[in-house]
Amino acid sequence: MVINMILDGRTIRDQILENIKNNSINYTITLAIIVIGNNESNRIYANEKIKYCNKIGFNYEIYDFEDMTDTNLENLIKMLNNDPKINGILLQSPIPSHLNFNYFCNLIDSKKDIDGLSINSIYNNYINKPTFLPCSVKGIITLFEKYNIDIKGKNIVIVGKSYIVGKPLYIYLSNNGATTTICDSNTKNLKDICLTKDIIISCCGVPHIIKEDYVKNQAIVIDVGINKIDGKIIGDVDHEKIKNKCSYISPVPGGVGPMTIAMIFSNTYDAYILQHKSN
Amino acid sequence: MVINMILDGRTIRDQILENIKNNSINYTITLAIIVIGNNESNRIYANEKIKYCNKIGFNYEIYDFEDMTDTNLENLIKMLNNDPKINGILLQSPIPSHLNFNYFCNLIDSKKDIDGLSINSIYNNYINKPTFLPCSVKGIITLFEKYNIDIKGKNIVIVGKSYIVGKPLYIYLSNNGATTTICDSNTKNLKDICLTKDIIISCCGVPHIIKEDYVKNQAIVIDVGINKIDGKIIGDVDHEKIKNKCSYISPVPGGVGPMTIAMIFSNTYDAYILQHKSN
Repeated sequence: MVINMILDGRTIRDQILENIKNNSINYTITLAIIVIGNNESNRIYANEKIKYCNKIGFNYEIYDFEDMTDTNLENLIKMLNNDPKINGILLQSPIPSHLNFNYFCNLIDSKKDIDGLSINSIYNNYINKPTFLPCSVKGIITLFEKYNIDIKGKNIVIVGKSYIVGKPLYIYLSNNGATTTICDSNTKNLKDICLTKDIIISCCGVPHIIKEDYVKNQAIVIDVGINKIDGKIIGDVDHEKIKNKCSYISPVPGGVGPMTIAMIFSNTYDAYILQHKSN
Repeated sequence: MVINMILDGRTIRDQILENIKNNSINYTITLAIIVIGNNESNRIYANEKIKYCNKIGFNYEIYDFEDMTDTNLENLIKMLNNDPKINGILLQSPIPSHLNFNYFCNLIDSKKDIDGLSINSIYNNYINKPTFLPCSVKGIITLFEKYNIDIKGKNIVIVGKSYIVGKPLYIYLSNNGATTTICDSNTKNLKDICLTKDIIISCCGVPHIIKEDYVKNQAIVIDVGINKIDGKIIGDVDHEKIKNKCSYISPVPGGVGPMTIAMIFSNTYDAYILQHKSN
């Protein structure tokens, strides 16, 4: 019986990045990041990615604009698609509301779609074909793999149905033999639903929505929430109260967050290999 | 309190077809059906569709082949895509296994994709944009609408995850505020899962998998199963034993089956309107 095992995203991130660094030592891999708007968090995330690019020897190109027209963004994405030295393209969300995020994600060449949000990547996930998955989704799946957590036949609840986590995860998990339930703000009996589940994954961005009495003994709890309260980062899960009931639990910070970072580089590496295999 | 109300697909089918007939009286609408292989059921289904085409005044073109090469099927679909008199294209499943069903569904022009199985239709459903939905899925949704069954906040289980019913339905329902669980053959506690649900939808093709003690009082039960046993059509639901517990129940035959037929013509009519609006 496993009790209170912390899913240590930071250590796994470092192992994965170290592997990527060693495997790519003879390759020139370049990640392009597009940031639009005056969202301070976006700039912090972009800088974080630059830090890891430097650490593992990837090149980067940052396109940072206060605002942008549809035509200019379209031209920029097409230019990056056609540039053979660019291996992965990341359109940092959110973008200003006059730009249609889904539309621009679909413009990204599916071989460079390291965020897994283009129509081809979504369709491939839907038909259970290997593809780029959104980095948080791949991060969670990799956590399961690294800790030998088998999802087949498990009852799993996902709380939150965003395009970048909840929805693609729900499709992946149900494609892979998990009995999956997705909840949203219309759900009336979240506590009862969570209480019967082997695995609870919260990605709705509501601080401490998953409380002690929502979790059955020996459940696995994955916290994808990153909520800032009084300058402190708080997850969706009331970690301190729940951790002693769980078999495995992912902390915030230090769980899915670092795994998401690792998967940006894992996907970019895979994109490089894919592009060079098919040439 | 509603008790034991039969969801009468035949009556609703007839009303819908009558409406389509009246609304399309001045239009020339043509449905193309492709049947490949020696599957007797496919031919029966095709004949059924011809019967209704005649009834409501639609034209039809049946392409019926014992077998076909990839190239010939590709050329046929492209010809139908480019033929302005064809409004809807239906590739009858199953097709011989040497032909990739998903690939050929994706060749169908999304404006003629009345089965809702092309990549664009799937993506639109995923991002919650109005689109062609698979006919059984649209049939179930229309049953809910006709009987004023609100799905928002309801706990719904779907048993079976096929591409033509389970998966697209699961996406549609969760996009529209239902708390949806999808089960498959890996699910360990199907009875317990069903017992807590407001709505049970079975589409796995296992005769009488949904038993009396799987259903809570006042639940709504939708039976999509069409199983032939000793020449008799049997649903996935043990209808006789369950019907007195339900608020609403769909029979087999006479429930989702006729609604699926109605939606083929509803989608073909919509395709005609869409094609003529955008020209």
